[in-house]
Amino acid sequence: MSGNTLGTLFTVTSFGESHGPAIGCVVDGCPPGLALCAADIQAELDLRKPGTSRHVTQRREPDEVEILSGVFEGRTTGTPIGLLIRNQDQRSKDYGNIAETFRPGHADYPYWQKYGIRDHRGGGRSSARETAVRVAAGAIARKWLKERYGIVIRGWMAQLGPIEIPFVSWDEFDRTFFVPNAGIVAQLETYMDELRKSGDSIGARINVMASGVPVGWGEPVYDRLDADIAHAMMGINAVKGVEIGAGFASVTQRGSEHGDELSPDGFLSNHAGGVVGGISTGQDILVSMAIKPTSSIRLERRSIDKAGAPAVVATHGRHDPCVGIRATPIAEAMLAIVLMDHALRHRAQCGDVATATPQIAGLAPDGVQSVPSPRA
Amino acid sequence: MSGNTLGTLFTVTSFGESHGPAIGCVVDGCPPGLALCAADIQAELDLRKPGTSRHVTQRREPDEVEILSGVFEGRTTGTPIGLLIRNQDQRSKDYGNIAETFRPGHADYPYWQKYGIRDHRGGGRSSARETAVRVAAGAIARKWLKERYGIVIRGWMAQLGPIEIPFVSWDEFDRTFFVPNAGIVAQLETYMDELRKSGDSIGARINVMASGVPVGWGEPVYDRLDADIAHAMMGINAVKGVEIGAGFASVTQRGSEHGDELSPDGFLSNHAGGVVGGISTGQDILVSMAIKPTSSIRLERRSIDKAGAPAVVATHGRHDPCVGIRATPIAEAMLAIVLMDHALRHRAQCGDVATATPQIAGLAPDGVQSVPSPRA
Amino acid sequence: MSGNTLGTLFTVTSFGESHGPAIGCVVDGCPPGLALCAADIQAELDLRKPGTSRHVTQRREPDEVEILSGVFEGRTTGTPIGLLIRNQDQRSKDYGNIAETFRPGHADYPYWQKYGIRDHRGGGRSSARETAVRVAAGAIARKWLKERYGIVIRGWMAQLGPIEIPFVSWDEFDRTFFVPNAGIVAQLETYMDELRKSGDSIGARINVMASGVPVGWGEPVYDRLDADIAHAMMGINAVKGVEIGAGFASVTQRGSEHGDELSPDGFLSNHAGGVVGGISTGQDILVSMAIKPTSSIRLERRSIDKAGAPAVVATHGRHDPCVGIRATPIAEAMLAIVLMDHALRHRAQCGDVATATPQIAGLAPDGVQSVPSPRA
Amino acid sequence: MSGNTLGTLFTVTSFGESHGPAIGCVVDGCPPGLALCAADIQAELDLRKPGTSRHVTQRREPDEVEILSGVFEGRTTGTPIGLLIRNQDQRSKDYGNIAETFRPGHADYPYWQKYGIRDHRGGGRSSARETAVRVAAGAIARKWLKERYGIVIRGWMAQLGPIEIPFVSWDEFDRTFFVPNAGIVAQLETYMDELRKSGDSIGARINVMASGVPVGWGEPVYDRLDADIAHAMMGINAVKGVEIGAGFASVTQRGSEHGDELSPDGFLSNHAGGVVGGISTGQDILVSMAIKPTSSIRLERRSIDKAGAPAVVATHGRHDPCVGIRATPIAEAMLAIVLMDHALRHRAQCGDVATATPQIAGLAPDGVQSVPSPRA
Repeated sequence: MSGNTLGTLFTVTSFGESHGPAIGCVVDGCPPGLALCAADIQAELDLRKPGTSRHVTQRREPDEVEILSGVFEGRTTGTPIGLLIRNQDQRSKDYGNIAETFRPGHADYPYWQKYGIRDHRGGGRSSARETAVRVAAGAIARKWLKERYGIVIRGWMAQLGPIEIPFVSWDEFDRTFFVPNAGIVAQLETYMDELRKSGDSIGARINVMASGVPVGWGEPVYDRLDADIAHAMMGINAVKGVEIGAGFASVTQRGSEHGDELSPDGFLSNHAGGVVGGISTGQDILVSMAIKPTSSIRLERRSIDKAGAPAVVATHGRHDPCVGIRATPIAEAMLAIVLMDHALRHRAQCGDVATATPQIAGLAPDGVQSVPSPRA
Repeated sequence: MSGNTLGTLFTVTSFGESHGPAIGCVVDGCPPGLALCAADIQAELDLRKPGTSRHVTQRREPDEVEILSGVFEGRTTGTPIGLLIRNQDQRSKDYGNIAETFRPGHADYPYWQKYGIRDHRGGGRSSARETAVRVAAGAIARKWLKERYGIVIRGWMAQLGPIEIPFVSWDEFDRTFFVPNAGIVAQLETYMDELRKSGDSIGARINVMASGVPVGWGEPVYDRLDADIAHAMMGINAVKGVEIGAGFASVTQRGSEHGDELSPDGFLSNHAGGVVGGISTGQDILVSMAIKPTSSIRLERRSIDKAGAPAVVATHGRHDPCVGIRATPIAEAMLAIVLMDHALRHRAQCGDVATATPQIAGLAPDGVQSVPSPRA
Repeated sequence: MSGNTLGTLFTVTSFGESHGPAIGCVVDGCPPGLALCAADIQAELDLRKPGTSRHVTQRREPDEVEILSGVFEGRTTGTPIGLLIRNQDQRSKDYGNIAETFRPGHADYPYWQKYGIRDHRGGGRSSARETAVRVAAGAIARKWLKERYGIVIRGWMAQLGPIEIPFVSWDEFDRTFFVPNAGIVAQLETYMDELRKSGDSIGARINVMASGVPVGWGEPVYDRLDADIAHAMMGINAVKGVEIGAGFASVTQRGSEHGDELSPDGFLSNHAGGVVGGISTGQDILVSMAIKPTSSIRLERRSIDKAGAPAVVATHGRHDPCVGIRATPIAEAMLAIVLMDHALRHRAQCGDVATATPQIAGLAPDGVQSVPSPRA
Repeated sequence: MSGNTLGTLFTVTSFGESHGPAIGCVVDGCPPGLALCAADIQAELDLRKPGTSRHVTQRREPDEVEILSGVFEGRTTGTPIGLLIRNQDQRSKDYGNIAETFRPGHADYPYWQKYGIRDHRGGGRSSARETAVRVAAGAIARKWLKERYGIVIRGWMAQLGPIEIPFVSWDEFDRTFFVPNAGIVAQLETYMDELRKSGDSIGARINVMASGVPVGWGEPVYDRLDADIAHAMMGINAVKGVEIGAGFASVTQRGSEHGDELSPDGFLSNHAGGVVGGISTGQDILVSMAIKPTSSIRLERRSIDKAGAPAVVATHGRHDPCVGIRATPIAEAMLAIVLMDHALRHRAQCGDVATATPQIAGLAPDGVQSVPSPRA
């Protein structure tokens, strides 16, 4: 396992570099009988694709997905689903000037040290371009989770650099910044325009939430549901921190505040973020993550070249000044993949039906991340 | 995989419940020829074991480990290492009164829903008692990493509820609270004494650091080194958040601040926390995590019983009022296991020797978590 | 994965050497709610244990199993089941004289080359002693398969060296030689007595059969049911060949003979041995395997010592002159483990219920291995 | 794991159906720095491809492979290698008439029962068409094994139905039948011509051999080298039996005959087939397998339709009357993949260099399968 397969039963095996001929993946373990066509996947890909506004990279990629196998007459057959996305707009020449130096904060230095070979074209395998296949695979998981369990997964940007973004309403969702707050968009645009001019980049915080997850998913003690979510989210390019539920706020909480009380109608709060003891509680799964600022910036920075001599580096390719902006669909996809994997793992060991009764209805969360459930 | 095996090549397969006859594990994949005896493991276990001060659970467990296999004439043979720890001080009767209700914030509710069976004795498999085997297995990893690469792994409590604990010096390390700050111990004792009287519990923040890790470990794109660290740490009981390097501080950082510059003498900062693109950079690996307050508290809380009727629950067994206090050796062990696994994974694909030169010396970290390297 | 874990969802992780303090395993992934006690496992172990007749090794091992976890109030809980068997009758001194040389046909030479360390006591990890834990783990799988699906797994010795053993009847089953043919026992005893006197050893053929397996188990294309069976059987000490159904007789068969015809009442033959395209057909699963003669014999043989100099080797420890005799319960256990693993894998992807109708009843097999189904 | 990934460290994840748009795979874990281009892979594919003589299927497939990733400037980078082969000559209409019935001996019945969905076009996923990707992936493994260790892997047809094919010489190798015996080709052609006219099909035996494998590869006790070889070979379409070394001849052998003696110059025989205790001995690895006759034949056979009613089935598509003929390159590829996987697994745990001395030279095998080593 060289680390390019995600999941245990519902698996995504990914390949492809930013500037090679194509990216793609093999999705294995999907139950048979799911209605699926390329358009189902394309709809998700279009949300993540580059070039949709002036605030993201200007690379033009149609990100058109082709289903190569595993679907017959509009239904999954239970055999592996091959997905292919051809790269179109590789401008490798943009990168010629950085082939001999290392960008501060960029993966080019450790990749070169690890493999002894450097594919300098646009970050090669370390590029966020690879995340398109996660979104494609995640689209399959989301469809199955929705159809079978009514699970809805939705994310949003909760902070852009210094600007905290209050959750207002799903009805006010803005697709440029992935914010549920139409009123803040003008402020975000101004901030991004100034940032772009400065040649610098900025971090962000992304939240993602799954509603309708049944109680009982997760494999303690090591493959807890929250552990696998943390693995998936920290496995997204540029993520430096992951929280479940109250997250780091738990540090200063007392047990009498943090522990979610129960009533015959369900839980009375959701500091747990829908996972206790590594197993889903039936409440909304609440995840938050920190995205670091893009490492490829136009500003000059101190570095070294491959011979170890001092060098000054500035990057002039096409980059997102805030990779957090396009991270929301990726986080949603990763959560979908983890949940689907655990749905199958739970079904393997415990069968299809819940084993105990009564099952308590998950209440809408309150506290730290209180927002209306996306299914509402 | 029912989730009780950690790792890909260096694997720990764990078993055992809090109040069953024993806990233990099988450690597989350890290279042959490592000098190993029970005392090597016992030394680490003694740091985690309960009953060592009035601030932790009063359960008396010698936590004596027996090596059942895999070691011959004082050296590992390359075959699986069986480790066994007998439980001694199970007072299951303490738990009789909570067998029919669910503790807010506790795993008993989702476990019961998942498996349809409830081992109510002391939390069963969900108890932190299981973490003793992680420490035992981690001791083997630490020894190998130290002997082969000079890697030193060390953790500390960085915050106890509201009290932030500045790093002063490894020379001032206090073994009761796992704090590198002797001057703050009296304040911590006072806080804990009052907390214990109140019947409540509190959260904590734990930091852990690995020095001497070579550049090049980690398997992008899904099994990144930081992703596997996040999986391991979020897989520790009560952890609700994980950060690598600058963590959530990255949200407000600009690229020109976050991206660690390089010089011929090494990196000039360590906001990355020693991992970029999922691969170690050669700098110190810096991890921080949030520990939630113990769910089993003496205060009365609203809940339900197995029939779904309202109930009031208070827990009178022996519990840590702050599970964070004993979490440091566990976090160290988990980091050791992940690093050893990736050492072997890297060696499998890329061979024993570094593939590229020159290798830049990792500098001591500065910035957010600047502390002297433990190897110093 | 250092190769000591068998299975994907129902997993057996084994440890222990022939002459260490204990052997054992962790069985993970067992569904909750299965009635289980040590006696269920002990009954199977007693069939395999040494010292039961003059035709097998005279080592005296009670092989008493202790369940360390995963069972509460007589039912599996869904958490890992730790099993422990203490070694009792290790006579390591028997092996002192062979510590410096290599036995022809024995694993001591490649083990030493692989690991650079040699546990010469009774074969160490390569000893057939380890197979006791397979039988113990297999007992759990057999019980679940029987209770849930009515699957019955049964094996027998089909050939002892030159003596072919016709299948007569389950009612004539002899427990000393594991043969369904009481009339042939005297001949086998005479043969074995002469063999023992000669100081030599002999090979054998073992058949094993599973009845009642539902149609649809197996994961093409690589983890086919027959591929995983072959892996399990070739993973038993001393096995050199594995056949499914017609096996090597297929080489000379025509398609019009080999392909099993169907009628509304079921299949009309079973050359496939119950697996086609890697998926169970609902017919009896038929497996046959070749067991090589024991390598540890009293006769003098040419070899070398650790320095590479010529040496003459004769082995005087306690050994089975035909390891095939005790292999039947091991083969049954391995088949049970593989089937249970695939039961869970199938359930994960395709759910609990058969997806298509009508399901054709598996007919009793005819042809090469025609014997009455054990469930009859 | 839905069974479409082969290997642990060097992994092949396959997708594609006989009559879908494409087949392909992701090869992960390949060490960086291996010189590789499409022509290296194409050369192997051309050996397996259909339509090369009148004795194999007349389907016309160029089997042109495209490398989509993982190679940069002619060298592997250590990232996953995506391989794509477009299907060209799908005549799905040939299969319309068998969509409602089941072919005796064919996977269509269990596939339909397993997944509840039937892709009747040319066998869908169960078609031998998928084996092209094994050959493609195996070409990478062969190249690495050859360059790094000098390992040579070569197979041949040892029996075609009733005709045993003596090994004469590699110099007399015939590429139509994959036989090292030019003198027997006319007899094979006559047999095949008559068989084709009859509308029937026939079985075969294939041998495959690896020379130059170092001592020490294999992971006991479950993932023994021979167990993983058995898994790989039984995972090839139509294989019903697998032997290592003496195989089923071991049944009647005595220990004094079977156990390979050693001298300072190496082993004196190779009944073990190069694997003892699950670990390579340094001798040639010798594998033999039984291939059943093709199930799709022109002769009428009794069967049922999807409603369970009696039906008569005859298959008129394009099929190999002996699938064994084209099986040799597939068996070679599978052996290469297994060996490369174990090379990496061994290196992970035990490092690059052999741990013990002296290493005994593997002698050319004698006995059952005595042929000149392909490296000679």
